[in-house]
Amino acid sequence: MSSTSPGRPRLTRRGAETRARIVDTAAELIFRQGVASTTIEEVRDGARVSNSQLYHYFDDKPALVRAVIERQAERAIGTQERFDLSSLDGLREWRDFVVDHNRDTGGLGGCPVGSLGSELAEAEPEARAVVAAAFKRWEASIMAGLLRMHALGRLVPEADPRQLSLALLAALEGGLLLAQIQRDPEPLAAGLDAMLTLIATLSSTPGTSLDN
Amino acid sequence: MSSTSPGRPRLTRRGAETRARIVDTAAELIFRQGVASTTIEEVRDGARVSNSQLYHYFDDKPALVRAVIERQAERAIGTQERFDLSSLDGLREWRDFVVDHNRDTGGLGGCPVGSLGSELAEAEPEARAVVAAAFKRWEASIMAGLLRMHALGRLVPEADPRQLSLALLAALEGGLLLAQIQRDPEPLAAGLDAMLTLIATLSSTPGTSLDN
Repeated sequence: MSSTSPGRPRLTRRGAETRARIVDTAAELIFRQGVASTTIEEVRDGARVSNSQLYHYFDDKPALVRAVIERQAERAIGTQERFDLSSLDGLREWRDFVVDHNRDTGGLGGCPVGSLGSELAEAEPEARAVVAAAFKRWEASIMAGLLRMHALGRLVPEADPRQLSLALLAALEGGLLLAQIQRDPEPLAAGLDAMLTLIATLSSTPGTSLDN
Repeated sequence: MSSTSPGRPRLTRRGAETRARIVDTAAELIFRQGVASTTIEEVRDGARVSNSQLYHYFDDKPALVRAVIERQAERAIGTQERFDLSSLDGLREWRDFVVDHNRDTGGLGGCPVGSLGSELAEAEPEARAVVAAAFKRWEASIMAGLLRMHALGRLVPEADPRQLSLALLAALEGGLLLAQIQRDPEPLAAGLDAMLTLIATLSSTPGTSLDN
């Protein structure tokens, strides 16, 4: 994401910091209570800015929400990219991190990107498109790992990295949603474990299945 | 679900019909626009009842929302129970039905139960618990099929029907969410196909993998 909106002048460092503080504050509030329950006034007060400062960076609430979607997607994808998804070991490390984090937070808020998508998909077509594009980037990021795994010969030739990436993202999103609703990381663990077991069976190195 | 709230007198047939019409109307409105955007007045007008009729059946909006959750869960589980999940063929028929339905509706609204869970999980603890219980019933219903598959020797002994049921539900929910956001059934198809491929590899009948 560019740090400036289209047509706006480039931000000074201080301007970029103020803008980031506004987006962080809005992201935190929206993650806890949803878009509908979060007011511009709360964000303004939470970020310790004036109305005119806030409207200097964002024309309206939808513009701020779009910036929040981008910020949450960047964070989610950035976190995932700390793991090497081109090997079973890397996939397992990522799975453990995700499940442990979910257990630590009690599943609260679900997926920061998926929750936004669920809330905005029907009411806000423009925001829906921004979330959809974010998930495409996320899928591509997962797929980069699995494509590499495939290219390195760690997956059997008939494995389809694109389908596996989509399925992994679906298991992650569904697992995070169920874990949020049930306040229990088990559905998330089960969803990811099933996908990792499938990937292990498609692994071309014998003896690397999850049970070994 | 009982057709009467606890402590309320048993409904006449006509009373039950009126109550069901109110719940159906509310469910339809909420599915399209969410709980927050749906007012009691809209439900009242849509169901062609008076205020006093509506409040005769439901003390307040949260009570009506709980009835909507139960209704949507009953429908979703009822639809799924038309399929025999104790065989690969039955699982495939269910997968095809779900994906075709998603394609026909353009993914609109996502999962009627999961969307409610996402919207209500943080703001409405009581509603969250009702959605969580609904998903437990849904999981049990899927598990009944896979347990039977296991008992019939169609799954290898080391397969874990409980974990597979949870994973299947996670793939379904995540697939429905991504399909809603992306207006594309592909993530749903990929998520369910991955789970069916895994179940096929755990199938004890050789030559029944999905590719054959």
